[in-house]
Amino acid sequence: MGKGFDVNLQATAAVNNSIDRRLPDTLDRLARLIAQPSVASRGEGMQACAELVAGLLEDLGFNARLMPTSTFPVIYAEGGSGDKTLICYNHYDVQPEEPLELWESPPFQLAERGGKLYGRGVGDDKGQLVSRLAALRALRDVLGEVPCRVKFVIEGGEEIGSPGLPELVDENRDLFAADACVWETGGVDYKDRPTLTLGARGILYVQLSVRSLNHDEHSGGAHIVPNAAWRLVRALASIKDGQERILISGFYDDVRPLGDIDRGLFGKLVEPDVEAREKEFLGIDSYVQGRTGQEALEAVFEPTANICGISSGYQGEGLKTVIPAEASAKMDFRLVPDQDPADILRKLRIHLDQEGFEDVEVQFMAAESPAVTPYSDPFVQLTAATAEEVYGSSVAVHPLTGGSGPLHAFRHYLGVPIVTLGVGYPEGLAHAPNENIRLRDFILGTRHMAHLVQRWAEEEV
Amino acid sequence: MGKGFDVNLQATAAVNNSIDRRLPDTLDRLARLIAQPSVASRGEGMQACAELVAGLLEDLGFNARLMPTSTFPVIYAEGGSGDKTLICYNHYDVQPEEPLELWESPPFQLAERGGKLYGRGVGDDKGQLVSRLAALRALRDVLGEVPCRVKFVIEGGEEIGSPGLPELVDENRDLFAADACVWETGGVDYKDRPTLTLGARGILYVQLSVRSLNHDEHSGGAHIVPNAAWRLVRALASIKDGQERILISGFYDDVRPLGDIDRGLFGKLVEPDVEAREKEFLGIDSYVQGRTGQEALEAVFEPTANICGISSGYQGEGLKTVIPAEASAKMDFRLVPDQDPADILRKLRIHLDQEGFEDVEVQFMAAESPAVTPYSDPFVQLTAATAEEVYGSSVAVHPLTGGSGPLHAFRHYLGVPIVTLGVGYPEGLAHAPNENIRLRDFILGTRHMAHLVQRWAEEEV
Repeated sequence: MGKGFDVNLQATAAVNNSIDRRLPDTLDRLARLIAQPSVASRGEGMQACAELVAGLLEDLGFNARLMPTSTFPVIYAEGGSGDKTLICYNHYDVQPEEPLELWESPPFQLAERGGKLYGRGVGDDKGQLVSRLAALRALRDVLGEVPCRVKFVIEGGEEIGSPGLPELVDENRDLFAADACVWETGGVDYKDRPTLTLGARGILYVQLSVRSLNHDEHSGGAHIVPNAAWRLVRALASIKDGQERILISGFYDDVRPLGDIDRGLFGKLVEPDVEAREKEFLGIDSYVQGRTGQEALEAVFEPTANICGISSGYQGEGLKTVIPAEASAKMDFRLVPDQDPADILRKLRIHLDQEGFEDVEVQFMAAESPAVTPYSDPFVQLTAATAEEVYGSSVAVHPLTGGSGPLHAFRHYLGVPIVTLGVGYPEGLAHAPNENIRLRDFILGTRHMAHLVQRWAEEEV
Repeated sequence: MGKGFDVNLQATAAVNNSIDRRLPDTLDRLARLIAQPSVASRGEGMQACAELVAGLLEDLGFNARLMPTSTFPVIYAEGGSGDKTLICYNHYDVQPEEPLELWESPPFQLAERGGKLYGRGVGDDKGQLVSRLAALRALRDVLGEVPCRVKFVIEGGEEIGSPGLPELVDENRDLFAADACVWETGGVDYKDRPTLTLGARGILYVQLSVRSLNHDEHSGGAHIVPNAAWRLVRALASIKDGQERILISGFYDDVRPLGDIDRGLFGKLVEPDVEAREKEFLGIDSYVQGRTGQEALEAVFEPTANICGISSGYQGEGLKTVIPAEASAKMDFRLVPDQDPADILRKLRIHLDQEGFEDVEVQFMAAESPAVTPYSDPFVQLTAATAEEVYGSSVAVHPLTGGSGPLHAFRHYLGVPIVTLGVGYPEGLAHAPNENIRLRDFILGTRHMAHLVQRWAEEEV
């Protein structure tokens, strides 16, 4: 306490002032970044966006460079000084903007309406990145320098499963060496409490395809002519039963049982009105299998088999009487500790063969391993404490998020604890039309980032 | 025998001579009809084509008039005289000509190359109609009059499911009253044998749709957020099992067992080399359930549940991790005697409700009832006998075709036996680019029509 504490309080106030004062400039940077499409799934605008991001880091006084991967370049940047090293993972790629007609303003144009910022990537993940940079800029303004070493690893393939990123981290363990990691995502929950997420599920993304014929045929022959759509429907139905149990042999073998600490954290997250609000937002009366309360929350520790899309035959207006020659489905399996995507892929192929679906081709598209940081980790504890200070609210700690990311590489190759913080909120429509963030969350998330870095740098090692 | 037989032979020769002599004029009429586009699916040229057809009938001395329907006019025409009345069903609409670039000559311009006539509708159905008219004209040339009453019902909506036609027939039972019916289609098979088809399956066409959410969601929530694609897959899988058995309760209740006569007819149709040729054309090693030979042919008397198309979620390149909010499938059920499409629609709804798929909406799109004429019918026997005389070949009698058409209205409202005969052949590319018929089939089909009418008119009632 005493003098040091006062100095810190004054510095924090100054940092917050700087964040506020520079907000127009910060939003201008965000607008430039949103205006540069960077749709990884179709490879649009990736190099241009990478160069734009590198430029934003150079503006901050960081050394930035592009590291090639098999797909799109990773921006690596270093700056700041101090005994500790923080590594920040972000991504500059975004989800496809379709369906375009549902956007109320153009997706690649930052728009402000009613205290919200709209645009593809504004929440996921360009807004998060710009917020991090704004926090570090404010620290430099007030303290003369960012008070710890900061390394940015900003990839261009997050939305397509981060191809090559784990290998890049593995090959650059020395270059990327750090003491802690701030992940790309974060924000507040329905109660406006800051959220802290301690892990992410893994993922296996595949396309199942079947061809039954040379060409679509008149459906008058359906009693003898094989139908690709029917084959696919049967193959899909064999993967999961009506009670959500995945039927692939050995699928659950490596699922780690839920521990008491995590169960306790889930207990604190139960909010019936939040659940009701989420259901209203989704337009549903109940979750699958009627799950509710703590059971629904803890289900994030169960792996899933999800159909992302199906396509076969005639999909236009009116009617066409055909037997489709081809059918395909995209699927993601969300994996929990300690499942391994390569193992699950192998088991899926065996399952289809055993069920008589040798004709259903499995095309591997992406994989990531699950990863978690324990709640007891000191950096986790500091992130939670600083969040409480900035937001004036308790922190909602999520032991695991339902989504996925390349956390595994950072957690296991670099050995760092990983925390989340940021500018998002639950109705931000990430991946959907009218993706948005709230301006107040943007400011608070930026303050939290600055405050965490400042406090961490000051602490005894 | 004796004199009458000789006279008939002489008359037949004279009729054939007349058909040959008038061939250039007949082809000129066909050329005018082909040159008038009449694409029902986009409503192009329908009124003009109807008037042109009415003009061709007036040229033949028939009284022709247009009868309005909810879509395109039906041409109704009467002519000839005698104790018996024949009704001819044809259609003047054609399939869309796309893809245009695959046509070797313009689709709406009759072209003759290598003994074949090319053009949209030349086989389906304008060539068939012009052949019928040429046959009747030759009979008038030789006999002074068409020797029976002939009524033409020529619709403009066959390629879009004959909307309103059954109701029109129902409402005009007295006007359309007849003793027998010649259907729009027919010709020879791969072995150049004349074919005679005794019925068509019915059809129920529906779209199944399910909405599980307000909007597509990030697939990280798949452990609790309902997925429309999964709902649809499960609903579809509940409709038919892996052995092609349709699981809708009561679905097979009204299926008439295959009779010995039909079984005998199928026995005569078994042609291993034709089956091999068809499989090669389809690019398959075997039919569904390994059916082959007579079993594969007889399976046309089994109803089908066919998926024409499925659409849900992300279908683009690469990957997108979403939970689809909506999913839909188009299905046709081909129905056999004595199934009723309205009954099947009701049973489908009950099935889905019973299986817990109240959320799957069933949109009715089209229906036609099955209809067959027994092989023992005298008009069928006469059609087969006259075909053998004209073609000098045995007749391939098909008890049922896998496709559907508005036969039911004629068979059941008018009570007439229905036969097929005509100018087509298996590689005529109906509905496809370079639709064609062979000139020799056109002449033989025209002779057969004339010969059938002449013989039928002479017979004792």
